Amino acid sequence: MELSAIRELIRLSSKKIVLLVLDGLGGLPIKPNSQTELEAANTPVMDKLAAEGVLGLSTPIAPGVTPGSGPAHLALFGYDPLKFIVGRGVLEATGIGIKIAKGDIAARGNFCTIDAAGLITDRRAGRISSDLAEPIVDRLNSIAIAGFQVEVRHVREYRFAAVLRGSSYRPELEDTDPQHIGLAPLKVQAKEPAAEETAQIFNKWIEGTRRILSNEKLANGLTLRGFSTDPQLPQYENTFGLKAACIAVYPMYRGVSKLVGMDIINFTGEQPQDEFAAASSEWGSYDFFFIHIKRTDSKGEDGDFEGKVAVIEGVDQAIPMLLDLSPDVLLITGDHSTPARMRQHSWHPVPLLLWAPETARADEEKVFGETACRRGGLGSIPATSILPLLLAHSARLGKFGA
Amino acid sequence: MELSAIRELIRLSSKKIVLLVLDGLGGLPIKPNSQTELEAANTPVMDKLAAEGVLGLSTPIAPGVTPGSGPAHLALFGYDPLKFIVGRGVLEATGIGIKIAKGDIAARGNFCTIDAAGLITDRRAGRISSDLAEPIVDRLNSIAIAGFQVEVRHVREYRFAAVLRGSSYRPELEDTDPQHIGLAPLKVQAKEPAAEETAQIFNKWIEGTRRILSNEKLANGLTLRGFSTDPQLPQYENTFGLKAACIAVYPMYRGVSKLVGMDIINFTGEQPQDEFAAASSEWGSYDFFFIHIKRTDSKGEDGDFEGKVAVIEGVDQAIPMLLDLSPDVLLITGDHSTPARMRQHSWHPVPLLLWAPETARADEEKVFGETACRRGGLGSIPATSILPLLLAHSARLGKFGA
Repeated sequence: MELSAIRELIRLSSKKIVLLVLDGLGGLPIKPNSQTELEAANTPVMDKLAAEGVLGLSTPIAPGVTPGSGPAHLALFGYDPLKFIVGRGVLEATGIGIKIAKGDIAARGNFCTIDAAGLITDRRAGRISSDLAEPIVDRLNSIAIAGFQVEVRHVREYRFAAVLRGSSYRPELEDTDPQHIGLAPLKVQAKEPAAEETAQIFNKWIEGTRRILSNEKLANGLTLRGFSTDPQLPQYENTFGLKAACIAVYPMYRGVSKLVGMDIINFTGEQPQDEFAAASSEWGSYDFFFIHIKRTDSKGEDGDFEGKVAVIEGVDQAIPMLLDLSPDVLLITGDHSTPARMRQHSWHPVPLLLWAPETARADEEKVFGETACRRGGLGSIPATSILPLLLAHSARLGKFGA
Repeated sequence: MELSAIRELIRLSSKKIVLLVLDGLGGLPIKPNSQTELEAANTPVMDKLAAEGVLGLSTPIAPGVTPGSGPAHLALFGYDPLKFIVGRGVLEATGIGIKIAKGDIAARGNFCTIDAAGLITDRRAGRISSDLAEPIVDRLNSIAIAGFQVEVRHVREYRFAAVLRGSSYRPELEDTDPQHIGLAPLKVQAKEPAAEETAQIFNKWIEGTRRILSNEKLANGLTLRGFSTDPQLPQYENTFGLKAACIAVYPMYRGVSKLVGMDIINFTGEQPQDEFAAASSEWGSYDFFFIHIKRTDSKGEDGDFEGKVAVIEGVDQAIPMLLDLSPDVLLITGDHSTPARMRQHSWHPVPLLLWAPETARADEEKVFGETACRRGGLGSIPATSILPLLLAHSARLGKFGA
């Protein structure tokens, strides 16, 4: 259903929603005839919620399509990720708190190491430490070229964000990373004539960085990718009537939440307990809490089956802190699958647990896992259907038609 | 699949279809770990049909979206309810047999009670009896204003239909019901400039009603809502090759059936037996019988779990009358869910039973209920897929492509 049609149906409610996302939750058995990470994990709390609630599977983008984190979260947030495209540059910049206005162009930057001939010898500049990279980023900000301004901000290690400020620049630009060592960084190329001017400005700026970087040992070159501008996403409060909070440790998830108009909650600590405590502190101020757990995905990408199991068990042990807040609707899912067996994101459908004591039509499933989810009462649904269900179960969706 | 593509595949068949709709059939357990209304009901006949046939669940509009009766029936009839929008005024007018041509504007009218200052004290005019309301409606028809004609017809109690006859009027008009007592009825406002003239004509007509209503005690004011014109729906016989009959007690369901080109069967009595007897009388004349049972929904809206169970059991006892007619395809479902626990329409998927001895691929389910339907062989399908299935099982859909 179009967002404009959903907005027409929105009504006020004081019921509270928690969307708990264990990044990369979906998995695979590490060997045939065994259990997935979620099934192998001992999760008495989620199993009880599963017994009281209703399970299902969600497809993030389309069957067979492995999602990146940005589109996977957009889908969970209710936006068709094939329609609303958010560039990597904007995600990176927004994630570290840089506001991107319409016409500004953001890119993700990587420092790289180049040899005397200008050819890349290390695409990540030896994973230079943040301590060493930060002062270099500061110097890049000193580049003064009449008529335009590129703001550079350090992200982590060899990564930074670069933002060209202006009102009419164009994002249709090719990445400059040649993707292989032994090649020189590419020039910024316009994908269409209207972006020609913007390409030339970025090329002038890159020219200006050479003098500054030439004395560096590791970070003596750079590449830019994901040129993009403000996607102007419909905002959460205006579209869904939800005052929404994002509780996430990692910048990218804070970035995509910010883009849809969520408030970003600051808190200390990186454990599930710390995140749930942050939700508790802000409980009175919001209708909707998006809580993001990163380490399920990290362990999956490390190929660490047992590690992912342990992270899931840790979350399970902390969930009673959330239940103590008496949410009206709690949905536990992942943004995509990251099977330890594959060591990467995958396209497999993602387990889904909806707990809403007043309105859920419970199914017969008693444990939270991929096999039970496949039999679950929600069936197999697109990830974009999750938010309308959360709205319905929190009494926020009025009747369509008479 | 687009209706135009379906029409290309239609071929002749003499097989007969019955679509039996128990309004608001889907439900919820009244307390945790118990059964829904349909599951709690003793339904030996439908259970036998379930064992012989195939079950499933249908989504009326989209996940999480609670349908009104109009769009829910359009979906069952095979029309995408997000594409074919039928206004309340047209539904109300058509339901009581008023033909709405293109350019005519129909509105649903409510009598209300206003005080000396013109503020509403009762939005339903004390639910004035039909006996008292009918003569007032007659007097409204006497309003003569040069250049236009508003036809008014009584519906029930405080409700009437008002139709502005013409060829080029526009329906983009705001409702005049302020939705709260203590406020005056609103003026008719155009939502866009092209509808300005139509708004002014309705306002002049409302002005003309004041003199007539001023001496009434209860019905001394009125509000109009759901301004709409003929939606020009593709017609059943032309689109699906079906000569179709509607057997329904309530005007609104007769209205939506009329709009898609079904013949409305008149009969006496309001019980399932009376409706099935009407089908029997007309059996030779039609290919497709839509039979509508209203009271499942009414009991759900009353919060009367046991009452809804009893209505379902009553239908079950009468179904042998239908089976005696030897339909080739019988589909039993609801237009949406109306759980007694919620006392209103809901978004929950709707149970579906398809019985077609020649062609149904039977599943393993032996009883008709939400839990069995979730496991059923039809899976979870959009309600708009039901009609193509009925066409297929009645040998009316030819092969697509060579």
